[in-house]
Amino acid sequence: MKALGIGLIGTGYMGKCHALAWNNVSTVFGDVARPRLVHLAEANGELAVARAKEFGFAKATANWRDLLADPEVDVISVTTPNQFHAEMAIAALEAGKHVWCEKPMATDLGDAERMLAAQRASGKVAVMGYNYIQNPVMRHIRSLIDEGAIGTVNHVRIEMDEDFMADPQALFYWKSEASSGYGALDDFAVHPLSLLWSLFGHVEAVIASLAKPYADRPTKEGGRRAVENHDIASVLMRLPGGISGVLMANRSAWGRKGRIALQIYGSTGSILYDQERMNEFQLYKTDGRATEQGFSTILTAPHHKPYDRFVPAPGHGLGFNDLKVIECRELMAAIAGKPSRAIDFVDGLRIEKSVHAMARSHREQRWVEVGAG
Amino acid sequence: MKALGIGLIGTGYMGKCHALAWNNVSTVFGDVARPRLVHLAEANGELAVARAKEFGFAKATANWRDLLADPEVDVISVTTPNQFHAEMAIAALEAGKHVWCEKPMATDLGDAERMLAAQRASGKVAVMGYNYIQNPVMRHIRSLIDEGAIGTVNHVRIEMDEDFMADPQALFYWKSEASSGYGALDDFAVHPLSLLWSLFGHVEAVIASLAKPYADRPTKEGGRRAVENHDIASVLMRLPGGISGVLMANRSAWGRKGRIALQIYGSTGSILYDQERMNEFQLYKTDGRATEQGFSTILTAPHHKPYDRFVPAPGHGLGFNDLKVIECRELMAAIAGKPSRAIDFVDGLRIEKSVHAMARSHREQRWVEVGAG
Amino acid sequence: MKALGIGLIGTGYMGKCHALAWNNVSTVFGDVARPRLVHLAEANGELAVARAKEFGFAKATANWRDLLADPEVDVISVTTPNQFHAEMAIAALEAGKHVWCEKPMATDLGDAERMLAAQRASGKVAVMGYNYIQNPVMRHIRSLIDEGAIGTVNHVRIEMDEDFMADPQALFYWKSEASSGYGALDDFAVHPLSLLWSLFGHVEAVIASLAKPYADRPTKEGGRRAVENHDIASVLMRLPGGISGVLMANRSAWGRKGRIALQIYGSTGSILYDQERMNEFQLYKTDGRATEQGFSTILTAPHHKPYDRFVPAPGHGLGFNDLKVIECRELMAAIAGKPSRAIDFVDGLRIEKSVHAMARSHREQRWVEVGAG
Amino acid sequence: MKALGIGLIGTGYMGKCHALAWNNVSTVFGDVARPRLVHLAEANGELAVARAKEFGFAKATANWRDLLADPEVDVISVTTPNQFHAEMAIAALEAGKHVWCEKPMATDLGDAERMLAAQRASGKVAVMGYNYIQNPVMRHIRSLIDEGAIGTVNHVRIEMDEDFMADPQALFYWKSEASSGYGALDDFAVHPLSLLWSLFGHVEAVIASLAKPYADRPTKEGGRRAVENHDIASVLMRLPGGISGVLMANRSAWGRKGRIALQIYGSTGSILYDQERMNEFQLYKTDGRATEQGFSTILTAPHHKPYDRFVPAPGHGLGFNDLKVIECRELMAAIAGKPSRAIDFVDGLRIEKSVHAMARSHREQRWVEVGAG
Repeated sequence: MKALGIGLIGTGYMGKCHALAWNNVSTVFGDVARPRLVHLAEANGELAVARAKEFGFAKATANWRDLLADPEVDVISVTTPNQFHAEMAIAALEAGKHVWCEKPMATDLGDAERMLAAQRASGKVAVMGYNYIQNPVMRHIRSLIDEGAIGTVNHVRIEMDEDFMADPQALFYWKSEASSGYGALDDFAVHPLSLLWSLFGHVEAVIASLAKPYADRPTKEGGRRAVENHDIASVLMRLPGGISGVLMANRSAWGRKGRIALQIYGSTGSILYDQERMNEFQLYKTDGRATEQGFSTILTAPHHKPYDRFVPAPGHGLGFNDLKVIECRELMAAIAGKPSRAIDFVDGLRIEKSVHAMARSHREQRWVEVGAG
Repeated sequence: MKALGIGLIGTGYMGKCHALAWNNVSTVFGDVARPRLVHLAEANGELAVARAKEFGFAKATANWRDLLADPEVDVISVTTPNQFHAEMAIAALEAGKHVWCEKPMATDLGDAERMLAAQRASGKVAVMGYNYIQNPVMRHIRSLIDEGAIGTVNHVRIEMDEDFMADPQALFYWKSEASSGYGALDDFAVHPLSLLWSLFGHVEAVIASLAKPYADRPTKEGGRRAVENHDIASVLMRLPGGISGVLMANRSAWGRKGRIALQIYGSTGSILYDQERMNEFQLYKTDGRATEQGFSTILTAPHHKPYDRFVPAPGHGLGFNDLKVIECRELMAAIAGKPSRAIDFVDGLRIEKSVHAMARSHREQRWVEVGAG
Repeated sequence: MKALGIGLIGTGYMGKCHALAWNNVSTVFGDVARPRLVHLAEANGELAVARAKEFGFAKATANWRDLLADPEVDVISVTTPNQFHAEMAIAALEAGKHVWCEKPMATDLGDAERMLAAQRASGKVAVMGYNYIQNPVMRHIRSLIDEGAIGTVNHVRIEMDEDFMADPQALFYWKSEASSGYGALDDFAVHPLSLLWSLFGHVEAVIASLAKPYADRPTKEGGRRAVENHDIASVLMRLPGGISGVLMANRSAWGRKGRIALQIYGSTGSILYDQERMNEFQLYKTDGRATEQGFSTILTAPHHKPYDRFVPAPGHGLGFNDLKVIECRELMAAIAGKPSRAIDFVDGLRIEKSVHAMARSHREQRWVEVGAG
Repeated sequence: MKALGIGLIGTGYMGKCHALAWNNVSTVFGDVARPRLVHLAEANGELAVARAKEFGFAKATANWRDLLADPEVDVISVTTPNQFHAEMAIAALEAGKHVWCEKPMATDLGDAERMLAAQRASGKVAVMGYNYIQNPVMRHIRSLIDEGAIGTVNHVRIEMDEDFMADPQALFYWKSEASSGYGALDDFAVHPLSLLWSLFGHVEAVIASLAKPYADRPTKEGGRRAVENHDIASVLMRLPGGISGVLMANRSAWGRKGRIALQIYGSTGSILYDQERMNEFQLYKTDGRATEQGFSTILTAPHHKPYDRFVPAPGHGLGFNDLKVIECRELMAAIAGKPSRAIDFVDGLRIEKSVHAMARSHREQRWVEVGAG
């Protein structure tokens, strides 16, 4: 198999994360050709050169469109701020490149729809960066559900909480502007939705209640400015198969750092998971003797694929960046025409429609069907 | 202070629990006169005699109305099935007895209102059996909130889950009949509501989604019968002071045994609690250095009053029955005209109105103001 | 069965705990005659009268020997400071009373041996107050081991830690005097030894290392005084059946409040327990599929006898004082000539010999056989 | 700075781990020149070629001595089975290469001493692969101790437990042969010793008790063979500064997967850590109000250096392989003549002497000073 040539746009949080994934994927998995790190784009030209050396890219540019024209580039990682995703992804697809785009697709539903149209027109692969679904724990939970280990699932609760907006003394910044999106719904709800999708399919109907813990925040000029979106979202949901659910997201939840807590209740058992302890999950089953029934805390191990590709010993732990390596492997599988567990633009769009349905349900104080979005 | 004469109706789960409380309250607290255990009523006359001996009551009867006529009886514990609460409590109040009534007040809102009217007419004390609010942990959480330890509270989540209805193979029984109430709302929601009340006051508005994990259940005759109420309730709430909240109750949650999990988010910290580990709570505060901030797991200790009345050593643990002893002490304080932390019929009625508002909000698929209930 | 007449010496921590047990035992268990609370002794005469009223005792005295002469008294609870145990227990036995004596037996091995001799001469029942072995969790662990649920046990670790001696600024007091005993060994090691005995039998050989975290402590006169015993004990052990073990005790362990952490490793599984979460234990078993093996956290429930006598619902929790009620029930069983799970003077003496062997092994820096003690 | 040329011997568990580290170190840290992956040696020539492609090495060989002669190679990673470490490391040093050698140094103390001599003669850098000390958690714990956050440390307990030897039905294999070493002491004790060294310095004196959970094991021929070393080690220790300690290691501890549990007790607080939850630690401090004192669970975050080099968001988690990247960075710092937190051959030798002292203390049933080893 010919090695893929990689272009990367952006060198921030996610840019570095993609760079690590491209550097590691063949060492970790062994069954994919080692990608060629061809071209790195970063608006700051000097930084582009420096990061290219660090990340191992052969060429650097301050103009991301150079990647479109580079015949050595087969795939483009889009890791820039959200407002650039649509333009870059569409251009990349139109230039005949595969696209690996960080979530969300776009800041506007119309843009997201155009991205999907571009992908369809191009025939190229487009994968979204929803890395939490790649955790071997999540994959194993899916297989447990599929085989009926907890019977028929009937109720789900999922919470995503962090505290980066929790300080009321922190200065107003763009994340509190309406133009940046709905707040917790955009920042967080998409991740739980990606996990729910990976387990059960897309949410069908919602009613949300959005809340502002702080009506206004101080500005650096010494005044105060009204907060324009909501740091807290609480959502009742209907999921496929008659599953009832609750989705909660709070980006002002003091003490929570990377919490994505999942409770899954079935007719013969239950499953619990928390991303802050991403190398374990809890399972309650009703077979066996009642006197010893309890939630088992199960540590990930080589038999929870593809943990084995990282470490041959159980309980030694993967990290956040490792999930991106798995996602990268799934992207490469998709490009090779093989089965792939990744969220493409079809599912990515549906997730964003779900978020918009949540926002509408709050505005209109009523249940909203997502399909009608 | 003259010792109170006690009458007890019922000798089941809660009857025994009240008996233990009456037996223990003076030994534990030392500052109340040891109650005289006067008269025990139990429909089964032989059982009444046996239990009276075990529990230490002087007299036994199969006719609960004998307690009304007994001049030695000052207080009556009502621990019979829910449908008898109203009749017994009203009769006891009309007979000039104080009343300690297990939750809920009644199976019908009209009855509950009549109970409150009877209490007002009698001038006697009436206290509901909401023992979870008596946990020294809950009292301490309240004092932390009052003193601003976590700033201004802005968001709350509370979950109450058990699994006694989780088995779909279990035979249909009265708990799945509509006549027994709404299901999870009646069985469970009242407890979280009592805790929320003790911390923040009564819920103001709600929208609920009720769910049936199992549409029908087997009957002992070999057929199947449709389930008439809901084992799962998910509720968005508005609480006093602009606090947004979510209340979740599930009596078919495999693996949960006595879970009442509370998350309280404030502007400078957070508090977590779970009734399954009732001797501890978790506190996150933002003072001090960021590098050492985390949720502290705090074990109850003598400085968390009135834990000290039970054990002088920290971390040694109270049990479920101990909370009833504290509740008993609060009842005795109320009877003595002293300040008391207990839920009387005024607050009890409001809690039940909140439940009815939840049920209505589900039926009508809209937000309902509780005050309008 | 004629009701037992109870005498109680002491009204402190353990005196109150015994009083609660005597008050509760028939209500909780139902199968024992309600004890008659006859006579309470407390050196402070006024306090004796007050506590008798609170605790429900008919008579009060400042002279504990009055209980010996009281024909209504059948059993005497000895809950005074350790140095009085021997004199009181021996006198009670000689007066023909059964004895319920708080641990340890005595401050001197010779006294303990005299206590055993007195018990044997009297033919009466004598039971030690080792309440932790009465936890339904511990009983269930024992039954799991007996039935081979974790195969053959080969290794055990047990830690008992609190922090009441952890503050180096705290004034020197009698607990740091050599005359009070060895320190952590006396205060704590006896409890782990009682648990190990209840599971495996008596320890066979030991080598200990004792440590002083603080060489001296401030005195109230403003000087400093050398600490004469050891707050920390670390012990390697050999247990019956070739089990290797480690016992650790630390009464200056900041943050530990009532920790007794037990790890039991067997050929097909493991068991974990911590007294600070006394209503749960953890079990790892190797049957079933490897991908779901993990430690199960099992909450106590009615099927873990005799939890059911306290609460009919699972996961609702017992408290420290409830364990004393169970111990009381075991004492009454022994008096009635029935099988009883309690530590009598034979086993109590052996536990104290184990402690002395530990102290000697430290002094002589060598392994010591307990049998040779 | 000229980029280092890397040679790697071995492509198993640790070979792959080193390869990932060399691939990632410049992307993660940014402040070191991206290493050139020059030459990979693997006894199986075909595998060597395949792995070189996957890992990104330019050349492959079946003869590890080719790396010695390769002028492009500056550093050699030695990741082969333990019995080859001495020969390879000494040859590499003699060829003027820096060495990164997996633990332990050698299977024989004489070999380890020769390795140190070779390092000293060469003037090159030699670093051992003790990656657990590189966890940002461990670094932060060290800084907390240094600044006196928990006062003066007086007691330490450390446990390392896994279950890969726990199954008594598993066939006898080389790990149970005496020639493979002491068992748990070699496999495990070195890791806790590395952590203790990183926090307190080297252990001073020890007395160990070694145990065999299974006297013999089945052979594939259908017979049984006696186990020649010990799967369980329990050690009392004296550490610098008068700290008393206990070290426990068990490679037959069912349910433990990668446990390294550390308890550190000081005069004003305590610290807990468990490698199975490597992204968090617990801290108990005695400042502040007693009513809120408890163990805080602190999630690693960017302020716990160098976590920030991997992820800019807190609580997102590092994995086992990330620790090797940090170790690689420390090695490169040492090569550049900068301060480095790594275990060199001096400290590595002392750790192995400690293990030998433990084994002797068991044989001779007495305390052994490590310095005298």
